[in-house]
Amino acid sequence: MKYRVGIIGGGNFGTAVGNILSTSLLKRHSECGDKIKNADGTYEFDKEVKIWIYDEKTELGGSLCQEINEKHENFKYLPGIPLKENLKFVTTDEDYKKLLKESDILVYVLPTFIAKKFALDLKKYDIRNKEIITLMKGFIAIENKKPILFSEFVDSLQLGHKVSALMGANIANQMHKGPCEMTFGIKNNRMAAEDLFTTEITKISVINDNIAVELCGALKNIVAIAFGICDGLGLNVNTQMSILRKGLLEMNEFTRLFKERSGIKTEKSITNVNDHVMFQSCGIPDLFVTCISGRNSNGGKRIGQGETVKQIEDTMNGQKIHGVCTAEFVYDYLMMEDIGIQKKFPLFLSVYEIAKEIKKPSEIQNII
Amino acid sequence: MKYRVGIIGGGNFGTAVGNILSTSLLKRHSECGDKIKNADGTYEFDKEVKIWIYDEKTELGGSLCQEINEKHENFKYLPGIPLKENLKFVTTDEDYKKLLKESDILVYVLPTFIAKKFALDLKKYDIRNKEIITLMKGFIAIENKKPILFSEFVDSLQLGHKVSALMGANIANQMHKGPCEMTFGIKNNRMAAEDLFTTEITKISVINDNIAVELCGALKNIVAIAFGICDGLGLNVNTQMSILRKGLLEMNEFTRLFKERSGIKTEKSITNVNDHVMFQSCGIPDLFVTCISGRNSNGGKRIGQGETVKQIEDTMNGQKIHGVCTAEFVYDYLMMEDIGIQKKFPLFLSVYEIAKEIKKPSEIQNII
Repeated sequence: MKYRVGIIGGGNFGTAVGNILSTSLLKRHSECGDKIKNADGTYEFDKEVKIWIYDEKTELGGSLCQEINEKHENFKYLPGIPLKENLKFVTTDEDYKKLLKESDILVYVLPTFIAKKFALDLKKYDIRNKEIITLMKGFIAIENKKPILFSEFVDSLQLGHKVSALMGANIANQMHKGPCEMTFGIKNNRMAAEDLFTTEITKISVINDNIAVELCGALKNIVAIAFGICDGLGLNVNTQMSILRKGLLEMNEFTRLFKERSGIKTEKSITNVNDHVMFQSCGIPDLFVTCISGRNSNGGKRIGQGETVKQIEDTMNGQKIHGVCTAEFVYDYLMMEDIGIQKKFPLFLSVYEIAKEIKKPSEIQNII
Repeated sequence: MKYRVGIIGGGNFGTAVGNILSTSLLKRHSECGDKIKNADGTYEFDKEVKIWIYDEKTELGGSLCQEINEKHENFKYLPGIPLKENLKFVTTDEDYKKLLKESDILVYVLPTFIAKKFALDLKKYDIRNKEIITLMKGFIAIENKKPILFSEFVDSLQLGHKVSALMGANIANQMHKGPCEMTFGIKNNRMAAEDLFTTEITKISVINDNIAVELCGALKNIVAIAFGICDGLGLNVNTQMSILRKGLLEMNEFTRLFKERSGIKTEKSITNVNDHVMFQSCGIPDLFVTCISGRNSNGGKRIGQGETVKQIEDTMNGQKIHGVCTAEFVYDYLMMEDIGIQKKFPLFLSVYEIAKEIKKPSEIQNII
């Protein structure tokens, strides 16, 4: 069986990952000819990688999708980085359906607020044994229910597919330069995709804990906002480090509680120590890189300087400060589960209250 | 009994800490009058804090020590920060002897290469029940023997005193601004100094593990050099994060092995999980702040840009890139203990070999 790879979402990160995968497949192709296999010959892959995107009009009035395919460059979301010819962008509804039907490995890289619809679409197809990988960093809202992670939600469909979360300390537009690391949080089954993501410039660690890995990716954005707020307030770096530490502890504790409340059992030897996940690329390193660069810490900085979330997002060309949304979900979750947020998660609560303008940014210091 | 506080070494960090302590004592003085006690009344302190320094000639030809006392500012090592009047700098041999004799709490903040002599001086005095605190970040060389930490060495004198290491994510010239955190690594006994270091702007966590706390302070400088080398080489931030992660894991593993080989037993419930120490201010946060600022990462950057350690140190006004020295000690230790350095500590080994010009800086990437 030949595995086909399809990516849903061709923004900055989706394109970067598509580039990694298509490069990986090209290299295998040049090594083994048409029989593109993984290292131990277990899996055989199709050379082409498809990315489904929403189409947009370019400045010249043409189709973004078409122009990306002609130029082999995603000049809108990942400018300056040449893409391989076997990375093909598609955009129609028909393309989308075909992608879902034909891909054995489906990589989701969408804004989280539209993710639920896409997850539900999976129900319309025979996805037995398909590998569903999320690279998204946030929660999905389910009306009147606790917020849920994408991989959890997709898993709950129980359609015989495999799920995993892939996270790591990676800035999209630097990934092609390598080397970099990523953490594959799987659920029980070994995945063909593990091997595919392992290339000359990417190192993959596999952890049998999709939930903890996905939570790292989501929660770090809340901490990065707090880190940025300190910056915006002109607080000193020692204070920032204290905030970062508190955030790290809350990430750890939230993960522990979330898994406990979800009744998730994982092998003791590898995975039920959160610290283990924290020491992977998806944990401490990703927290660090998100704090020192990126949209969330920058958003936090502007909050610290006195702007409201709305004012900031109005200048972000349709993008969101993800961590604000995640802080809201975490707040809702903790309230629904009746976990003492004030006592156990003062940083998460502070970011929520500051973003909601219930508290002043300067009150972030009270948690130290 | 009134506890007297003496600091040995009034450079950048020694002065910053002296400033914290003298401020702390002044505040207690204004609250309780001459009976300056700690929070629960267990200890009584003397208001004055003395710092012993090597004297130097100032630009005007005067005595640095005298001018600091007149101006209440260490204009050479901590310029721009007003010091309290109860912080007194002293400099003669007589002063030094008096300080050793009269202080109940002795805080050491010296360059590590001269620390052994100062530690041995303690033998000449009755130091029963005195509290010896190290803020130094490195090893002491003992001829033909394994490198040893300052608190270990002082502890080995067995003179009935208490030892501890105080480390944390703190840049000296920002400490007075607060808030910041520090980690007190004690050995069994509760110390009067714990309370003294707890102020409105400093939060202290106490860990019953002086060795792990002191090792964090020392080892992080090696990682910061590696981090800086990546910067100097122009490698991308994703690669830097991978290097940081490897360094963190080696810090953890070295601490585990070092303690195991030293036969150190600590209470299981609190301290023998290294991760616990890593999540304190002395661990991950201090590693971060050292990587993003400071002498070691800057030194590493210049190494990455092609300078030799000697060329860099020649421009450092007598100061050293501490992490280079620590990498040498760690190398010696691992060789003497016959621990597979190549396999278990590739980052520590790489920094050693790059600093010694055995390897090129660009080879740092091989460890990913």
